[in-house]
Amino acid sequence: MAHAVTGRALARALLNPASVALVGISNNLEKTAARPLQFLRRAGFAGKVYNVNPTREEVQGEKAYPSLAALPEVPDHAFILTNTEQAMAAVEACGRLGIPVATVLAGGFSEQGAAGLERENRLKAIARQAGVRLLGPSSIGLVNVHSHLTLTANAAFGEPGLPKGGIFCASHSGSLIGALTSRGRARGIGFNALVSVGSECDLSVGEICEATLDDPAITGYLLFLETSRNARHLRRFALAAAARGKPVVAYKLGRSELAAELAVSHTGALAGEDSVTDALLKDCGIARVDTFEGLLESLPLLARTPYRKAGDRPPRVGVVTTTGGGAAMAVDQLGIRGIDVVPPSDQTREQLRQAGIDGGSGRILDLTLAGTRYDVMKTTLDILGQAPEFDLILATVGSSARNHPHLAVKPVSDSIHQAKPLACFIVPEAPEALTLLTEAGVPNFRTPESCGDVIAAALNRRAPNPELAADVTPMPTTYRAIDEAQAYHLFAEVGLTHADFTVIDVDAPLPALSFDYPVVAKVLSARVSHKTDVGGVVLPIHNDQELKQAIQRIRYNVERNLPGETVKQVLVQRLTRPVGEALVGIRRDPEVGPIVMVAAGGIYTELYKDRSLRLAPVDLETAREMIGEVTAFQALTGYRGRPRGDLEALADAIVKLSRLAVSDRYGIVEAEINPLMVLEQGQGALAVDALVTVGT
Amino acid sequence: MAHAVTGRALARALLNPASVALVGISNNLEKTAARPLQFLRRAGFAGKVYNVNPTREEVQGEKAYPSLAALPEVPDHAFILTNTEQAMAAVEACGRLGIPVATVLAGGFSEQGAAGLERENRLKAIARQAGVRLLGPSSIGLVNVHSHLTLTANAAFGEPGLPKGGIFCASHSGSLIGALTSRGRARGIGFNALVSVGSECDLSVGEICEATLDDPAITGYLLFLETSRNARHLRRFALAAAARGKPVVAYKLGRSELAAELAVSHTGALAGEDSVTDALLKDCGIARVDTFEGLLESLPLLARTPYRKAGDRPPRVGVVTTTGGGAAMAVDQLGIRGIDVVPPSDQTREQLRQAGIDGGSGRILDLTLAGTRYDVMKTTLDILGQAPEFDLILATVGSSARNHPHLAVKPVSDSIHQAKPLACFIVPEAPEALTLLTEAGVPNFRTPESCGDVIAAALNRRAPNPELAADVTPMPTTYRAIDEAQAYHLFAEVGLTHADFTVIDVDAPLPALSFDYPVVAKVLSARVSHKTDVGGVVLPIHNDQELKQAIQRIRYNVERNLPGETVKQVLVQRLTRPVGEALVGIRRDPEVGPIVMVAAGGIYTELYKDRSLRLAPVDLETAREMIGEVTAFQALTGYRGRPRGDLEALADAIVKLSRLAVSDRYGIVEAEINPLMVLEQGQGALAVDALVTVGT
Repeated sequence: MAHAVTGRALARALLNPASVALVGISNNLEKTAARPLQFLRRAGFAGKVYNVNPTREEVQGEKAYPSLAALPEVPDHAFILTNTEQAMAAVEACGRLGIPVATVLAGGFSEQGAAGLERENRLKAIARQAGVRLLGPSSIGLVNVHSHLTLTANAAFGEPGLPKGGIFCASHSGSLIGALTSRGRARGIGFNALVSVGSECDLSVGEICEATLDDPAITGYLLFLETSRNARHLRRFALAAAARGKPVVAYKLGRSELAAELAVSHTGALAGEDSVTDALLKDCGIARVDTFEGLLESLPLLARTPYRKAGDRPPRVGVVTTTGGGAAMAVDQLGIRGIDVVPPSDQTREQLRQAGIDGGSGRILDLTLAGTRYDVMKTTLDILGQAPEFDLILATVGSSARNHPHLAVKPVSDSIHQAKPLACFIVPEAPEALTLLTEAGVPNFRTPESCGDVIAAALNRRAPNPELAADVTPMPTTYRAIDEAQAYHLFAEVGLTHADFTVIDVDAPLPALSFDYPVVAKVLSARVSHKTDVGGVVLPIHNDQELKQAIQRIRYNVERNLPGETVKQVLVQRLTRPVGEALVGIRRDPEVGPIVMVAAGGIYTELYKDRSLRLAPVDLETAREMIGEVTAFQALTGYRGRPRGDLEALADAIVKLSRLAVSDRYGIVEAEINPLMVLEQGQGALAVDALVTVGT
Repeated sequence: MAHAVTGRALARALLNPASVALVGISNNLEKTAARPLQFLRRAGFAGKVYNVNPTREEVQGEKAYPSLAALPEVPDHAFILTNTEQAMAAVEACGRLGIPVATVLAGGFSEQGAAGLERENRLKAIARQAGVRLLGPSSIGLVNVHSHLTLTANAAFGEPGLPKGGIFCASHSGSLIGALTSRGRARGIGFNALVSVGSECDLSVGEICEATLDDPAITGYLLFLETSRNARHLRRFALAAAARGKPVVAYKLGRSELAAELAVSHTGALAGEDSVTDALLKDCGIARVDTFEGLLESLPLLARTPYRKAGDRPPRVGVVTTTGGGAAMAVDQLGIRGIDVVPPSDQTREQLRQAGIDGGSGRILDLTLAGTRYDVMKTTLDILGQAPEFDLILATVGSSARNHPHLAVKPVSDSIHQAKPLACFIVPEAPEALTLLTEAGVPNFRTPESCGDVIAAALNRRAPNPELAADVTPMPTTYRAIDEAQAYHLFAEVGLTHADFTVIDVDAPLPALSFDYPVVAKVLSARVSHKTDVGGVVLPIHNDQELKQAIQRIRYNVERNLPGETVKQVLVQRLTRPVGEALVGIRRDPEVGPIVMVAAGGIYTELYKDRSLRLAPVDLETAREMIGEVTAFQALTGYRGRPRGDLEALADAIVKLSRLAVSDRYGIVEAEINPLMVLEQGQGALAVDALVTVGT
């Protein structure tokens, strides 16, 4: 891939080309392939536009060239509007001529079964060979709002007067860039640029966004993701964006299994497991919103909300309102997302009282109709903005926002420079109020759901762990399991404790055990991963006699159930008396990188999907946070008089296992302690089973 | 309460008065108390309006009377705009004069602590004594859009040209009726009437709505509920509305515990447990939505969606779209609410193919840009509308809905009369398209969240159980517990099985048991409800000798732990070997009525809040549905090779216990079987503990 552009040069050719070629531009205005020229002219793009059409001398009244080769100069960017087969030839031509970037509109690739996948691989090879960076296929194009580059067939960009702004949008869906633009327009929200990435056969969301990170005109990134494809690029970009303090928000399909499947069928992408991607987004500092409106509404708030660190106290919101019912809806939506709305402190109440403001005695400051006066709301916000008990102030405004926006909403927009993040939920239909707030930079919401969603996403956004590597190291191509005893030795090296055990040769005389009965005996072999299923585990064993019998039983069971397997050793382990059990696992995901998971294990973990996931490694505070996210572990916190488990020891085990996941020393691909016995508080936690796979 | 109006007479005086009095109407246009007269005049109310103001002869240029008694006639309805104390006197005056209905704007009642509650009780007594029906206090008034009766101080109703429609809105929040009106206006959604019920010291949401049920102009009911106060009226109204086929939708605060508390602080109401109210709404045929926009958007769909019956197959939705990404958002939102989007059958695909329509091969029919042609979308909808595999068709339209609404959206609105319920999600900002759809009667959504919310609420709406009584019978005022043996005898009468047991007098010689060891021995006394806590349970017991010892131990433990208690009898019960356990309980709620609950019992039921609730009684299909709603019971369905539990026997037990809840014979206030031992499939289920409380 000699000469292929990357970084700033890529961003320039892709998003700021001095000249573009429209390959296959149509003269028939009814056709999709006619749109880009129309839109570029309507928008007033100042660069050169070359029309390429082998069958006409003129297109839409402009000169047309028969081929890319016939152009008077080498354009920076070719938008290929032809059918599938011709697109491949066109990309090849771009390569011959040295055109650095091509965008391909046509579909008919990986989303169309085996034949399509073969075509896509061919396209990919052509582009790589030719040194052309490719946007698409199935890309509806891109728009640079500031340079009026409407290099797209999306009908939404035929509308004149696109509002300019600082948001860079990248989307797996081409139609959504149009919908986001029209919704933004109605709210006074402008974009810097919007890119439809199509099926990302070369350029991905992550790489494109990363290439633009140095652009000071871009204030934040808005991503519409259908899959977790190319997650490694996203990881790299997100960590770099967080380091620069540029906020990133994502809406990702796949909360339901149905949509994950759909993402496959309609863009030909392989959807990753949603919870793994969720961990990636959160751990790399990307705020994930669950409401579509929240996606548009979130960046102003993210820009003003500090990242949260593990161990920080739970975020607290103060609410002031002129409408009790409206505020209660927003509070409900915050509550179901675990965000606390707290009442003003006595000191804050006293300040309000001295200012002549009566906000009642409840959790929210209800100014009632009195709050529709400018001075009442402004004074209240000034006082709340200084109150240390709040991390964010939410103002909820009722019908006066519609009837008297300059009275009821102006005090809110005038408070944008207060010390704390500020947000505003407008309960009635009041477009003027929303635009007023947007213009002042105040995050504003028109539904209680997006209000709760965005505030929770912003306040819960975590600072990326500085130990996270920017790049995901490639996976080894071959693996092997190690046996349970080897796994314990490996664990012991990093300080992970396990129950006492000894390894016994089945043909040798029984040695004296260095620990007391009762014990468990288990077949020891790297080839037997599900020991219980093959009769390879016997417990409890109370004395030497029973142990001898157990060894013979294991030998018989395993050799009968696994023909060809010869049992040579058993692992004899002391039985422990835990107060609870945990499952701790690590895994290297080829795209997302190493991850660590904790759960209680057993059937309820599966049924309730009750587990916590993070990118590895994690620190102790994060491990504690993970334990707090697993509902079942509440049973070990002294719940209803039950004994407390040693959750600190569990946290320590999570940290240590997570470090193994990123260690080069052992080359671990996957490791699982299931169960880790959680002893009573202060007594520790012991691994009593282990499955470890390493690269070879 | 002689002469107090109810039913149609109430609806007439409240909502269609020929004459109204404005008591305390202000001449100062800045004041809230000046608004109702302004608004009535601006709206053009044709009835008589009498201004009552003791200090002025004229108000806002109109004649004012010094008192209600001075009016030339007895008005139908008095809107009392005075302060708290004067309001009480005014209601008294209404009673003396025979004014049937008074609305009280003032607050200062039950939301203001003990003194306020005392005032509210006084107000209530005055109204009852005087025979006046009261709306409020803390009511911002009401609006009858058709008769231009803007009898309210809500500023939103000062705007001229309120859109008329068939929706009757009742709200615990006064400000929300304004917000709903303005949001409806922007969408072309009109109301019949809107009522702010305030703190419902007399007239409640349920009674007001029920009084209007015969009005043919009202096509559906929209409720904004902050609490479950007066749930018995709601129950009565909902059952009557369902019988008439009038759809009812509710948004209720309190999904989070925080909001439940807020509801208390800001309207002075006692919030009920949200899950109990949720059961009431669902079992009485009220659709509950969780999105605020969904509240406004839902009635057209509810009007066209049949009620679901327990045992019906899960509802299935077909999706057609011009934008894959937009449709995928809606599908994701349906999926997380458990609604299946299914692909067209082979037969349907063949029909589409014959009509020249290519919708791809996926779960959604993606017409892509081709679908923006009228004929393509219309033909597709015609074919899907006949396809038996779908219960509802969702059309998702992209940017063309904004740019060419008459091309892209018209085929959808022209399909409103097809055989199946139809709905439309508009992805871009496209107000014209939304209004077009509303005018045609097509349910339309502007966010994927409200789209998924409303479709799920509509398709899951259950027909009320015909066995549900309209009225909740009053609770007995005194109760007593019965002992475990009595409880089993009572259960046996209705066919609820229990483990074999015998009752032994502790001082008598040990009788021969009629069943085998092992057994459990338990103290038998109606006064000991938590037997284990006082050492009143011993198990397992393997022989007569152990049983004798156990009886002595129980005697000793209980008499030591409960001074004054003398143990006379123990209950000896055969131990069972279940494959799972369940908790089945019934309870009479004073407002909601008898309810039945099933859960797996134990700590995880509490931690995961994993249970299913219904109004009692339930039939077998509903009991099966309840079992299906409890995640833990998946462990008893043959999960991962585990033995199957006798879930049919569990369902049967739920049905029988639920019948006990409504039986007059036993007067049960509360009963709980915990645990009910679920044996292996075909072996039944046995109660092994029972707590029963009956009225005395």
